[in-house]
Amino acid sequence: MSGGETELVQYFAAKGKLNRAKFPIGIGDDMAQIKLPRGNSVLITTDMLLDGVHFDTKEASLEQIGYKSMAASLSDCAAMATIPLAAVVSVALPRNFGAAKLKKLHKGILIAAKKYNCPLIGGDMTSWRKPLAVSVAMLSVPGKTKPVRRSTAKTGDVICVTGTLGGSIVKKHLEFEPRLKESLMIAQGGANSMMDISDGLSTDLNHICRLSKKGAIVYADRIPITRNAKGLIAALKDGEDFELLFTMPQGKFGRLKKQWRFKIKLTVIGKIVAGSSVKIKMPYGKVAELLPAGFDHLRKTR
Amino acid sequence: MSGGETELVQYFAAKGKLNRAKFPIGIGDDMAQIKLPRGNSVLITTDMLLDGVHFDTKEASLEQIGYKSMAASLSDCAAMATIPLAAVVSVALPRNFGAAKLKKLHKGILIAAKKYNCPLIGGDMTSWRKPLAVSVAMLSVPGKTKPVRRSTAKTGDVICVTGTLGGSIVKKHLEFEPRLKESLMIAQGGANSMMDISDGLSTDLNHICRLSKKGAIVYADRIPITRNAKGLIAALKDGEDFELLFTMPQGKFGRLKKQWRFKIKLTVIGKIVAGSSVKIKMPYGKVAELLPAGFDHLRKTR
Repeated sequence: MSGGETELVQYFAAKGKLNRAKFPIGIGDDMAQIKLPRGNSVLITTDMLLDGVHFDTKEASLEQIGYKSMAASLSDCAAMATIPLAAVVSVALPRNFGAAKLKKLHKGILIAAKKYNCPLIGGDMTSWRKPLAVSVAMLSVPGKTKPVRRSTAKTGDVICVTGTLGGSIVKKHLEFEPRLKESLMIAQGGANSMMDISDGLSTDLNHICRLSKKGAIVYADRIPITRNAKGLIAALKDGEDFELLFTMPQGKFGRLKKQWRFKIKLTVIGKIVAGSSVKIKMPYGKVAELLPAGFDHLRKTR
Repeated sequence: MSGGETELVQYFAAKGKLNRAKFPIGIGDDMAQIKLPRGNSVLITTDMLLDGVHFDTKEASLEQIGYKSMAASLSDCAAMATIPLAAVVSVALPRNFGAAKLKKLHKGILIAAKKYNCPLIGGDMTSWRKPLAVSVAMLSVPGKTKPVRRSTAKTGDVICVTGTLGGSIVKKHLEFEPRLKESLMIAQGGANSMMDISDGLSTDLNHICRLSKKGAIVYADRIPITRNAKGLIAALKDGEDFELLFTMPQGKFGRLKKQWRFKIKLTVIGKIVAGSSVKIKMPYGKVAELLPAGFDHLRKTR
């Protein structure tokens, strides 16, 4: 393996130069945006979830797998502060999967579709002699603000997260709630940049900083750690938290926090700074480089 | 297995009742349509292509696999007489697939993207210890006509196909050209119904008839058979022809044929009739029922 996922995404983005008037947001963000005539635009995301990687058919129910497949893309809609519109799902079914099992998977998809008002409008199915794979493509439309990107963090922004981080593998990764309503309010509150935490805080904050051409300092003792997570390292590295990571000016964050009516808490964990290095200040005072350390799908198989 | 693919698609369509004002075309056609404000609409399709089913990594090049993955969805755009807009691709990569191989797959995707003006604008990649899977989701917009559906064949329509049928497995299935320009002209010529032939003529004509609540009579000796195909049976049953199957009033077909400037030939192979039975008249005069006999992904593994 000669390069990691990040380098490849940069390669793909460079190779497929897009017309920015038509595609203001392309490869490398949580969703791509397509401008349509008369002021309309839609956004699209796709996620492929695989048995043995994103779920385990021996442990998770098919309803949970269906739900999670949709929720992962719904979380992308939240990451951009957009409103889900519709989804299509393609599946690769193990041989002898059968109609009864497929209906269970479908039920889980519909639970998410109904809960988040994002109907399933089409799909594709094929059987093969291999494990289950579920690929979702989802469309959304902007809310009252422009879609919030990863690449637009500003120096001086506070770095914030929703909820708590780490330990998702215990159960949350199958049943998480995409932060759709929360993200709309965060965007209206004036977020400069946002994404969902799917590959771990350390990796994902590095994405925001690299794309925004900024540095960051994170305070380890401010990171909200999930109760059953294995401490700070889990909160930094565990994938699939599906919480929001966003940056905004400190004053706006203060106002947002006063208006906040959701159960999910907001926490400032650090600050965007000039430069390019992402650092973490440990509780005992040492400052270390915060390297991308979450999952890199081309460096290792989970 | 208690039911085939057709029954399941009907089940899914019934379970996920769509708002027809917002989603005029939903589950069961080549693409789903989403109405947007101010008279806009977009259509979406998704296809998952699997190693050992739709391609064989031991025989096809990765460029061919990338091209075919896009072309299958482009053919869906053609099937509805719509204009491709953009695509996203999610991939499941075998362990140790590596950046070099991924770039070859990407190259094949970009060849199709450029040729048919349908840029790749996003994607997702994950590695696992299983074979390659490629899932494409593609957006399109209507041309000068409404999208042409499967369910709107009229009694008296002639049944027509583009090109020749059968024997796609030899090579064509990897390098076929989606009939995008041809389909726009066919739609403007007044087609009442259309789809692309992906599961074999016999299966796909049965789809049009079932959805349109019509019958059909096909004349075996008029079916244009590909030179290297194994005769009539191949032309009826072979999947992945990716030619267009459409119906239109006889007079309109006459005018269309006069104006036709494309290399691909148009052939009338039969007629839509009242009722519900799909029949084939053999060269020696016998009339038989034409059963869906193409691929059914839930009945058998290819």
